[in-house]
Amino acid sequence: MALIVQKYGGSSVGTIDRIRNVARRLIETQQGGNQVVAVVSAMSGMTDKLIALAHEVMDNPPESEMDVLLATGEQQSIALLSMAITDMGYKAKSFTGAQAGIRTYGSHTRGRIDDIDASRVTQALDDGYIVICAGFQGVARDGRIHTLGRGGSDLSAIAMAAAVKADLCQIYTDVDGVYTCDPRVVKDACKIPVLSYEEMLEMASSGSKVMQARSVEFAKKFGVVFEVRNSMNNNPGTIVQEENTAMESLAVRGVSIERNQARVTVSGITAPVAYTAMILTALAKAEINVDMIVANTAHDGKARQSFTMNMSDLGAAQAALKSVLPQLGPNAKLETEAGLAKLSVVGVGMRSHSGVAATVFQSLADAGIATGMIATSEIRITTTVDAADIEQAARVVHAAFHLDQVSA
Amino acid sequence: MALIVQKYGGSSVGTIDRIRNVARRLIETQQGGNQVVAVVSAMSGMTDKLIALAHEVMDNPPESEMDVLLATGEQQSIALLSMAITDMGYKAKSFTGAQAGIRTYGSHTRGRIDDIDASRVTQALDDGYIVICAGFQGVARDGRIHTLGRGGSDLSAIAMAAAVKADLCQIYTDVDGVYTCDPRVVKDACKIPVLSYEEMLEMASSGSKVMQARSVEFAKKFGVVFEVRNSMNNNPGTIVQEENTAMESLAVRGVSIERNQARVTVSGITAPVAYTAMILTALAKAEINVDMIVANTAHDGKARQSFTMNMSDLGAAQAALKSVLPQLGPNAKLETEAGLAKLSVVGVGMRSHSGVAATVFQSLADAGIATGMIATSEIRITTTVDAADIEQAARVVHAAFHLDQVSA
Repeated sequence: MALIVQKYGGSSVGTIDRIRNVARRLIETQQGGNQVVAVVSAMSGMTDKLIALAHEVMDNPPESEMDVLLATGEQQSIALLSMAITDMGYKAKSFTGAQAGIRTYGSHTRGRIDDIDASRVTQALDDGYIVICAGFQGVARDGRIHTLGRGGSDLSAIAMAAAVKADLCQIYTDVDGVYTCDPRVVKDACKIPVLSYEEMLEMASSGSKVMQARSVEFAKKFGVVFEVRNSMNNNPGTIVQEENTAMESLAVRGVSIERNQARVTVSGITAPVAYTAMILTALAKAEINVDMIVANTAHDGKARQSFTMNMSDLGAAQAALKSVLPQLGPNAKLETEAGLAKLSVVGVGMRSHSGVAATVFQSLADAGIATGMIATSEIRITTTVDAADIEQAARVVHAAFHLDQVSA
Repeated sequence: MALIVQKYGGSSVGTIDRIRNVARRLIETQQGGNQVVAVVSAMSGMTDKLIALAHEVMDNPPESEMDVLLATGEQQSIALLSMAITDMGYKAKSFTGAQAGIRTYGSHTRGRIDDIDASRVTQALDDGYIVICAGFQGVARDGRIHTLGRGGSDLSAIAMAAAVKADLCQIYTDVDGVYTCDPRVVKDACKIPVLSYEEMLEMASSGSKVMQARSVEFAKKFGVVFEVRNSMNNNPGTIVQEENTAMESLAVRGVSIERNQARVTVSGITAPVAYTAMILTALAKAEINVDMIVANTAHDGKARQSFTMNMSDLGAAQAALKSVLPQLGPNAKLETEAGLAKLSVVGVGMRSHSGVAATVFQSLADAGIATGMIATSEIRITTTVDAADIEQAARVVHAAFHLDQVSA
């Protein structure tokens, strides 16, 4: 008998029919001889509706009360899903985040999971119930409700899997798993059967929208093996687990792309070395997430720094940097470029295979695609290209590493 | 400085504008130098919407999960009301039933309040917050959510008032208070300034829809003085408190009417004395609330019993009694009469004033109104009349006791 945690997102429980579909899947899993915990999100659209209601009251509602309001979304889902299972003749019991013992810390609307006292959940499993747990929420030490922010339900599922020592955590979504590239862009992209946590992390942070990085980090930290799979079919998904030697046989596992990127360059910097901190502090104060950072010094001794960021942040970044520009140098200048995209290749095999970068840039050059900023980690190479070139870039790099033959 | 608990029902928080109105009232109360706890219901219509959603899933949803679902209604109200107060520049903190320490026992969907650990609420009051507490809900010892059934928010408010030792509990509703009779029926009906718990109880159980009897009982048990008043104006309401001698100066305080009544009579009973238990058990099993019971023995030694009940229960009562009829006697017969109404006069002064019953029946006889079954308590006289006669009956009895001159 295995213990399986299954997470269902908002679209998987978006209608009563879909809730019934999830109920059937949970029952099948239990009938297969397993103990089952479901972690569910609010019905799709519900969270937006509640946010709109709050904004009817005021522009900037206090986050502690937003949490109280938003937590009702998942609470409705767990009750309805539990009813659907009961209706099919099986035992189910719902748990809010607080009832499931999910203890949080940090700020409202972006709480972090501290620990989970899963004793009530474990008792219900031992009593033969299918346990239905509200994702995205927990309770702080002062008894207030916390929600966990974007991707919070994935985090709830993985943390619950760690707490109950689940054999497997299945993250159900509307895609079959993690692909070698976005199949809408690269037609012969393949589902990747197994990935390491590090690869999943690099893909998450380089544009693959399947999961938030912090959920993957949590899984890595607690050794939770999880599988990303489709709630509408029974296809095997992508399993994410600790790295093993077999994974190194391939230099590159996947290609991620991220659109809507912009670059900001500050040049003519003559200020002393503190200038990087000065620039990054100004951007952080404006709540802008900077992604790639490239710095160098020109032959005239003046420094220049470039950053990429989401295009929607460009205006705010420009405004924030304008105010510190005079402190950077008498002739310091700001240059911006929108309309960029990012291409990343990811794979743990990169560590032991040489020539990966050469293959990436050669294939792009052969296709006549100019590259811009470049950044690398141990298992990732990222370059910016013109937004207009990103799809072709993805296809030629995908082909150069024969990624269409992965999951044979 | 006084501590005031104010309860606002679903229609008082039914729209964002009305929520703002309630926020203003709470702030005014606090600015008047008081500590304030608001107990609120779900926005009107919300509970029905959630029930409909549950019934989309299944016909007979488990009550434990109905509680989880329905409790989200008040949870949304408390968050929105708290936001509205914050928006106006004042401090508010919301509490679900569980967070407010409302501990319950009994069954799901009709839980009973066990006790309240109000320490968190008291702390928040001491910290200068307006406390917003979800009515209608609490938490059982096993950590499950209980809702309190019909009128549950009134009960929450009165129990909270007892727990925090409030100076006053104000039950805000859409009427100005308790009237000597329904003003839609008797045009010169007056608002009653002060009532005893017993009078309020008799009026509640004889058709006056202002409050459920169990909330009044709870208030009586814990000596909570409460006031029924209108959330849309600032008129003083009806204060309900311990009986005092001044209240006895009037023989009759009010006239209640209840429509949609039916009578069932079982005649020809020859069974031994256990027959009453047999009949009432059959009706209880069918979940029929019997109201008046009149029993006597005819000169032929055969017994007959009559009951009143809500007209909607008549079919079920007939079916339930048919099955026990053969055991009551070989010629036992069932008779039913629908289309009845009940008229009650209530007043603690009845104990010391004689001739109240005579005045009731004389005034009805003078108006040519036939009376049917009669039942009395120490402070109430009830009679059935034809439904067609009930309004005229109310008017003539109201006039006979000069109730239009009460609150001069």
